[in-house]
Amino acid sequence: MVNKNPEIGIKRSGATAPAGFSAAGVACGVRYEGRRDLGLLFSKEAGGTAAVALTTNLLRAAPLLVTGEAVEGGDVRAVVVNSGVANAATGQRGLESAYGMQALAAAELGLEPGEVAVASTGVIGEHLPMDRIEAGIKDAVAALGDDGSGFAEAILTTDTRTKEAVAAVEVGGKIVTVGGVAKGSGMIHPNMATMLAFVTTDAAVDKECLQGALSGATERTFNRITVDGDTSPNDMVLLMANGAAGNEPLTQGSPDYPAFEEAVEAVMRELAREISRDGEGATKLVEVVVEGATDEASAATLARAIAGSNLCKAAVYGEDANWGRVLNAMGYSGVSFDPGGVELYFGPVKVFAKGEPAPHDPAEANATLAGDEVIVTARLGEGTASATAWGCDLTEEYVRINGSYRS
Amino acid sequence: MVNKNPEIGIKRSGATAPAGFSAAGVACGVRYEGRRDLGLLFSKEAGGTAAVALTTNLLRAAPLLVTGEAVEGGDVRAVVVNSGVANAATGQRGLESAYGMQALAAAELGLEPGEVAVASTGVIGEHLPMDRIEAGIKDAVAALGDDGSGFAEAILTTDTRTKEAVAAVEVGGKIVTVGGVAKGSGMIHPNMATMLAFVTTDAAVDKECLQGALSGATERTFNRITVDGDTSPNDMVLLMANGAAGNEPLTQGSPDYPAFEEAVEAVMRELAREISRDGEGATKLVEVVVEGATDEASAATLARAIAGSNLCKAAVYGEDANWGRVLNAMGYSGVSFDPGGVELYFGPVKVFAKGEPAPHDPAEANATLAGDEVIVTARLGEGTASATAWGCDLTEEYVRINGSYRS
Repeated sequence: MVNKNPEIGIKRSGATAPAGFSAAGVACGVRYEGRRDLGLLFSKEAGGTAAVALTTNLLRAAPLLVTGEAVEGGDVRAVVVNSGVANAATGQRGLESAYGMQALAAAELGLEPGEVAVASTGVIGEHLPMDRIEAGIKDAVAALGDDGSGFAEAILTTDTRTKEAVAAVEVGGKIVTVGGVAKGSGMIHPNMATMLAFVTTDAAVDKECLQGALSGATERTFNRITVDGDTSPNDMVLLMANGAAGNEPLTQGSPDYPAFEEAVEAVMRELAREISRDGEGATKLVEVVVEGATDEASAATLARAIAGSNLCKAAVYGEDANWGRVLNAMGYSGVSFDPGGVELYFGPVKVFAKGEPAPHDPAEANATLAGDEVIVTARLGEGTASATAWGCDLTEEYVRINGSYRS
Repeated sequence: MVNKNPEIGIKRSGATAPAGFSAAGVACGVRYEGRRDLGLLFSKEAGGTAAVALTTNLLRAAPLLVTGEAVEGGDVRAVVVNSGVANAATGQRGLESAYGMQALAAAELGLEPGEVAVASTGVIGEHLPMDRIEAGIKDAVAALGDDGSGFAEAILTTDTRTKEAVAAVEVGGKIVTVGGVAKGSGMIHPNMATMLAFVTTDAAVDKECLQGALSGATERTFNRITVDGDTSPNDMVLLMANGAAGNEPLTQGSPDYPAFEEAVEAVMRELAREISRDGEGATKLVEVVVEGATDEASAATLARAIAGSNLCKAAVYGEDANWGRVLNAMGYSGVSFDPGGVELYFGPVKVFAKGEPAPHDPAEANATLAGDEVIVTARLGEGTASATAWGCDLTEEYVRINGSYRS
């Protein structure tokens, strides 16, 4: 699942692909024994920049407050993450734990606390076992290295596999690399619908510009996926740029800025797709493309409504090209459009046009749902804007995972 | 499931409980053989009034256009309903079918077409078999009688049981009765499944006033239920008042109008609860009460967000008092509130208060989820407004039903 640019040799995937980043993932028993649950990602280079996108859930978890403050205040060079406990809805004590995690990691790394971001994912409403976190941080600092796979594992919850991506582009005559790692919905505890992503680059990038690249790409990637419609209080995407590539710092006006922006977006898009594909209980990745809309926001709203509809998701699982449910989800999305101008496709099979069922063989339409990647396309006759959203099917397994007791 | 007023003798439940209404339900093979799938409800009295609430889904089905026109234009005395095919997304031919259904029923009943409402529920994107509908209408007219149970059956789709309710109140010295019948099951997130409800009364009621009673009650009953978040293009609540009770026509200013309004709401609330309880695959009715909000709309949004969350619904199914998911759904609902001022209860067990987990025995909280009716309460510290929403649990059976609905 690596976004490869054949022009440029890429040594490895993930958050340690860009120069100057090292990582570790260790087991410290936050919630369960015997699995990696504490990750550390660190840039050896000082003087970089960082940007962050945080959940819009009002119930913002404690680590997000601490990380938001850190990115706002200065240049974040490290992030420490635990899985198992989300440290959300934990009040003042939870906030103290998040600051504690930050201070412990900073002390071990020889940094100021404000240079360390923190993130948590797991069950809501439980307190972090700070003694274990402390031991884990010490182990992680000792284990820091080029291999990002331990970190990629440590941040997982009910995910069934790690999610890493990488892209490289030429910027001001230098090759810069963008790497990323993410976790999606998740195994140990059904409360773990958090998504976390950590994206790194060895490019030198002006801070405001970096935030712009992150926000734009987040809107078009992570904000376009859905597994179950439940937005977590712990969602976080952190982007760190350390300048190790030696390029002139990128600004909005740099000729190569668009290429850099696209590299960031390509990494995030790949991670977003992998999160959807690995949604709890999912057997299929569903890509929904909406074209011909008046504006991108409307196209995105329509695409997300389809990708998020329980009925559409169950139909995909059942390999039933039930296009009425697709049209129906568009109808209640809140976007205004003329249903008479809509064309709907399952894969290449046109199923609806001109306000009526389009003549087609239902078996042929159903067959487009047989694989593990499904494409549904809606073409509106309203304008030229388009958007893509990603989701997954709804399965009995999703219910089993999320109906089972928290232990 | 009858709302009984012990002061007043009520002979039967459902839409034929008020004087002057008769009904029938027949099998005409719209989609499947051997089950009732065409219903007719008829008032012998002329000169009544009618009101209607229709789906907000942009993809409004053909019968809704026809019924909207009829209620707008005059006094509807009959409604003909089929199940099996929704007559939605069927273009010009679909509209002609809906008008055809209306005209056929009117001719058989000796009415003007504009006195007949039509409704459909079932698969989207298929055409009505008009020859079967025509035969069904003839059979239904011949079968009209006092017993509403055949009608209650004929309008069902994946519902597992019929839904009827009745209430009676004294109005201007006369006993007036309000009866109702509904179907629900899937695609239920009414914003005025398909949900259909037909409410009748023998009260004489001014038309504007009747529409006011219907709209207010719809907002507090059917607009507060959810099965799967999918708003159908066929949702319809029709209220017919035929004046057979002989009361002075009720207007907004009548001293007994509030009592009448409450009777209408009580019938609709009972039907709404029954729709939630019988949601596709559901094993439990979930009642979510939000108190202490700044205004009723905010309370309703919060209550619906909790009732609609897949993760909350799966937790209820698993009898896991996973209050973090409840708080989380409130957090992403879009309503602004102070999480530190929230108290959460499963049944009588307080699980969260003052921004932190409230000390409680998890087994005791889980035990409140063991029955077939579950109550979750959120108390905010913001104001005095409250609202109740109803939903159901999310089960493997929901996925099974919707993975194979068309086949």
